[in-house]
Order: sequence, then structure tokens, then C-alpha cells
Amino acid sequence: MHTSAISLPIFSPPKTLKSQFLSSLNPTPFPIQTRLLSTRPTLTIRSAVAIEKETPENERPETFLRQSDDAAASLSSSSASSIRGRFEKMIREAQDSVCAAIEAVDGGKFEEDVWSRPGGGGGISRVLQEGNVWEKAGVNVSVVYGMMPPEAYRAAKGEGSAEGVKAGPVPFFAAGISSVLHPKNPFAPTLHFNYRYFETDAPKDTPGAPRQWWFGGGTDLTPAYIFEEDVKHFHTVQKKACDKFDPSFYPKFKKWCDDYFFIKHRGERRGLGGIFFDDLNDYDQEMLLAFSTECTKSVIPAYIPIIERCKDMPFTEQHKAWQQLRRGRYVEFNLVYDRGTTFGLKTGGRIESILVSLPLTARWEYDHQPEEGSEEWKLLDACINPKEWV
Amino acid sequence: MHTSAISLPIFSPPKTLKSQFLSSLNPTPFPIQTRLLSTRPTLTIRSAVAIEKETPENERPETFLRQSDDAAASLSSSSASSIRGRFEKMIREAQDSVCAAIEAVDGGKFEEDVWSRPGGGGGISRVLQEGNVWEKAGVNVSVVYGMMPPEAYRAAKGEGSAEGVKAGPVPFFAAGISSVLHPKNPFAPTLHFNYRYFETDAPKDTPGAPRQWWFGGGTDLTPAYIFEEDVKHFHTVQKKACDKFDPSFYPKFKKWCDDYFFIKHRGERRGLGGIFFDDLNDYDQEMLLAFSTECTKSVIPAYIPIIERCKDMPFTEQHKAWQQLRRGRYVEFNLVYDRGTTFGLKTGGRIESILVSLPLTARWEYDHQPEEGSEEWKLLDACINPKEWV
Repeated sequence: MHTSAISLPIFSPPKTLKSQFLSSLNPTPFPIQTRLLSTRPTLTIRSAVAIEKETPENERPETFLRQSDDAAASLSSSSASSIRGRFEKMIREAQDSVCAAIEAVDGGKFEEDVWSRPGGGGGISRVLQEGNVWEKAGVNVSVVYGMMPPEAYRAAKGEGSAEGVKAGPVPFFAAGISSVLHPKNPFAPTLHFNYRYFETDAPKDTPGAPRQWWFGGGTDLTPAYIFEEDVKHFHTVQKKACDKFDPSFYPKFKKWCDDYFFIKHRGERRGLGGIFFDDLNDYDQEMLLAFSTECTKSVIPAYIPIIERCKDMPFTEQHKAWQQLRRGRYVEFNLVYDRGTTFGLKTGGRIESILVSLPLTARWEYDHQPEEGSEEWKLLDACINPKEWV
Repeated sequence: MHTSAISLPIFSPPKTLKSQFLSSLNPTPFPIQTRLLSTRPTLTIRSAVAIEKETPENERPETFLRQSDDAAASLSSSSASSIRGRFEKMIREAQDSVCAAIEAVDGGKFEEDVWSRPGGGGGISRVLQEGNVWEKAGVNVSVVYGMMPPEAYRAAKGEGSAEGVKAGPVPFFAAGISSVLHPKNPFAPTLHFNYRYFETDAPKDTPGAPRQWWFGGGTDLTPAYIFEEDVKHFHTVQKKACDKFDPSFYPKFKKWCDDYFFIKHRGERRGLGGIFFDDLNDYDQEMLLAFSTECTKSVIPAYIPIIERCKDMPFTEQHKAWQQLRRGRYVEFNLVYDRGTTFGLKTGGRIESILVSLPLTARWEYDHQPEEGSEEWKLLDACINPKEWV
């Protein structure tokens, strides 16, 4: 994604250098894309990190993997050799099936932008805007390559201060699917999901140093009004996906989600959570690939039944205004805290892909306080004090 | 404003440690205010910096200065002794006159929140929301005291690495007026202005170290459509205010404004600029107080005639949608780049006062491109390539 990442530590306090890198995949690691029919005046993006230019493509390629990857992978002693390719296949199938499900409910069609990079990698952005059910729905996949500073690689391996070793930058691979779906009806919730896989090559100048890999992702629900059975249904589907793999996953990832989507300056979460995990590599790689696959397959059964139930509910201007205020909170979280968004903005990523996560419209009223006990108050209370839904 | 500011260096790359401190005054240095009639559920703000709680007041005090200030000031050999008090008086008069001018045009009334802090200092927030002409207008003044880490003090004095000196935290004083005015009509521009004065006490444990002080501020215009005569008028008033003091001010501060209000990830400015300056202490203090006063007095003649001309212009849905897209850019600048806003959010400032700068409503369309040569395109072009208006 970037050819130099030395400036990373300027961002908000990360857990580790490693997590700073993973943040680049959340939600949308799209670098700049040259517009085909741009009427925009010429401009120079002042970027903190030099990045390669993207090329728009007319057709989706079979794969965004580089040819050399297969050769390199076959030399590896690890069984991870095919994970890159299988992860890409999985997220592209997930993109197809989620878009098809959205189109079936909405009646509108996604528009698609395909791009590639000279050095390998690329992505597919799909956006449905001002549809019948969704005001803005984006589903993006990307497969990117870059260079990781040796400090980050060492931190990732848990060798924080191995100052003696003079290693060069380590090549990394990152693939992910990222989606935000904002419906029109104030009773129909916003959904976000994002699943990603990250891998470094074994550094050539440090014999014996292993290839590293991690999985990350999550699915979370952001309603403006609580229908308890819907929130329970959503969390139950997440829990079922988790329980197939490890009974500790759902409680752990549910809490991680509540902690991650926290709008610090408001003291509240942006929504009612779901699951979130990052930097996951302490389980079998095949198992985590299967788990990520299961999570993406859970998106439609978790979300579409809720939308079917809520999309045509009658509502008032007041309901719409409250939805718009909550959309304002969504904007605040994404622009101020979301690691992928802030990283993308600061490194000159493809802005339209990164900010497709923002709602079509949002609202900020001075000092708005919902009346205690009202439906709006109940939502706010659940965002401040996260509940156990299953 | 804060009792500890060690965490400051986590913010976006500053020019100097000093400017990080000044950023705390831009635009709205309001710490948390306890709500009188809050229906909000109990919550704990997780703040990067410990801050003192604010107390709502029923009446505006004569002054927010501490009684001890006058005594301390009279001991000082500097003629700066009365600057604190005179600056406070000036910004409070500016708040009164700007609010009166807004009310006269709008017909609506500002609501006022007054708050104080146990250790001294306080502020007055005034907001007019959903008026006849403005959808959201905020005019805030504050007078705050805090402690500045010795590193910041040394940096401010230009003694970057005087590690040998073991100085304690240095008390500082900061006062400012900050205002954002968002009209309803898409042809009527948004105005922002902010003027502030910053001072440190002479540190007791470092004999001979001087009292430090700086001025900062600016006034800038953000239209959705360009009426050249209006933009020229606005800049001409700014230039006249500057020229009364130094012919170098306008060109210098005009460029500073264009540079500051730059939305890096878009490669465009949020508006058509005006003047901006920060960390100003290399002129006579009396002169800079008079200059700041002149700038606040220029707000009404620079802005109100434009509003009178534009506020009732007929417009279409398309005009409104474009205004809303530009409001989205305003949100992006304030949440991602504005030093005062990001500082305030991260240190647990009074959120409603800080975010009163956000528009009532905003919009984000995927990949919106105005048609080349259109009025929307002309505005965007001027935001990308700043022009000389006078």
C-alpha cells in the first residue's frame, strides 16, 4: 500500500507497531485511483507517505495476486502457501453474495470500480447510492502489497528492542473485504463488516526469521432504535459463527467490539456492537481462515431478516432527525477514531473508497438530550452501557 | 484547561511544542461542564488528560480572572500587567456585539451557558440554532488556566534541549473568542473567527526566566458558491484591518490561512480563506492587542453585508445538496485536522461547545464530481487553487 511507512507513529496511540500496520486494512486499504473521466481540477495530494498510483481497469482480473507469489509460496515450508489465494477467493465470493443479497432487497444496482497497481495487487469497489432501501451501501475488496519497516516486523514477532539486528524493510501482503450499509428508514440499522488477512514474507537478510501472518475483522450493528428481538437475532448469529470454532470467541470478540467502537469524547459506542478481533495468529491458520469465511457467510442471515422487517416501517420527521444525529456519531467515530480511516486519510489512500463508509447525510444539534425513558434514550443508554444480548 | 498535558505529543505533527499549547485555544477551549438538567445516563469520560470539572453559573461574572492575578501582575516588571484583563474585556465586548448583529439580522435569540472552574476561569457559550437565517451560530468566549510542562516552556523560549535545567510545570493563562456561523441559504457563506491570547507566568524555580506571551487567531469565509464581489469585499476588510498595523500582515496571514485550512486528503481547502496567524509574539504587545481588537471589530462589516445580500436568494434542491456536500468537507476539516477540535476531543473538553462548530446537517455522496465550468466546479477550483482576491 505504501512504499514507506516511517511516519506511522504519528497516529493515535496504538497497541503495538503491528496493530498500526493491521489498521491499514481497516476498513478500506484503497490507495489513490486515477479517475477515468475526472472533471476535477489538477491537484497534488500532500501525503505523509509516498504511494504508488493506481490504474483503473475495465475488467475484474481472475486474481490480484502476483504471479511470483505462487513460486515464492511453494518455496515456503509453511502450509500457509495457499492462504493468500484462498483468502482472496473467499472475500471476492463474499462481495458477490452480499451485493446480490442487497440488490435483491433494494431493487437498485451496485456500481463497480476496478483498479490495479503496477507492482501487483488491486481492488474492486462497489457502491449503491440512493437506492430504494439503502441510502448508501459500499462493499469493497482489496489485495495490496507493501513494505513494512523492520521495527514493526520485530514488534510483530515480539522482539521489541532487538536493536542489534540490522534488517531491511519486510515485504507484506494484505487482503480484505470492507462494507458499510446505511439504510434510509430510521428503524432499519446500519451494518458494518470487515475481514482481513495480513502476511509478511520471510525477510531475506535475517535467516531463520519466519513468515508472519494475522487475521482481523468483525461485524457490528448500528441502529437508531432498538428492537430487542432484532439485536438478539444479530448477536445470536454472530455467537453461532463463533461457537463453531471456539466457545471463548464470542464473549471475547463481543467485548473487543464494544471497546473498539467507543467514541471516547462522547463516552458512548457508535452502536450495539457485534464481534471484532484483530492481530489474531495464536490459533491454527486453517481454522482462522474457516472462521473468517464463516463470519462473512453470517452477514446475510444476520442482517437481511432485520432489514426485511424494518425497511417499510412508517416513521415521523422526529425519528428521521434522531437517525441523522446517530449518523453524526458514526461520522465522528470514523473520522476521529477508526484506525483504518484515519490511516487511509493520512497516507493518501483512495478517498472515495475510504469515505464511502460515511452516511449520505448526518446532523449535529447543539446539546441534544433525549427525554429519559424515551426510545431515543434507550438507544443512547445501550450505547453508553453495553448489554449482553444473548 | 488541563492539569497534565504530557500526552500532547500524540497529536498531529505540530510546528513546535509551543504551537501544540496554543492549539488548545483554537477554536474552543471549553472543558467539561456539568449539565444542570441533564437526563443523560451516568457515564465516565475516558480522557487522555485529567481535567477539573466545570460548574454551571446562573450569572455572568464581571471577570473570569482570578483575584490573585492582579496582585501577581503588579509585581511584574512587564507592561503586560493588564493585558489579561484587557483581552478578556475585548473578547466579551466582541461576543456581545457579534451576537447582537446576528440577532438583528436573524430575528432569533442566542441561548447562553455560563460556567466557571473552582481554580479560576470560566466561559460563556452562546448558540442560536435553527434560526431564520442561520441554522447554527455559536459564539463562545473562555478564560482558562492550566499547567504547561517545562519542555513546552523551553521550546516556546527557543531553548529546545536545555535538559540540564530541572524546571517544574509552568502556569499558563489562555483567553479566546471562537465563533462559527452556518447560514441556511446555500448562497450565504459560513463564517469562522477565533482570537486568542496566551501567557505563561514567570517560573518561580528558574530565576530570570521571563513571562512568555503570544497572540493567535483569524477570520475565514466558507461559501458554497462564489460571488466574487462578496469574496473581494471580505478579503478587503481583512486587508484593511491588517494594513493599519503592518503592510506585511495581510499577505503573510492570508497565505497562512490558505495553508492552515487545508484538507490534506482532499487536496483542497475548506473555503476561500481570509487571515490566520498563530504564536505571534515578535511585535509589540500593545500593538498585537490593538490588532486583535481591530480584527474582531472587522467581523461584522466583513460578513453582515454579504449575508444581507444572500440570505433570501431563491435556490433549488441542487444548490442545497451542494452546500451540504461542502458542509461535509467542513466536518472533515474540523474532526480530522483542526488542532483545537482534535485537542479538545482528546482531552475531554466540553464536547457540545467544541462541536458547536459542526454544521446542523452535512452530506457525503460517493465520488461526486461537479461538471467542469459549473458554479460548483468554480468553487472547488478556488478551494484547490487559492486565489488572490484583493
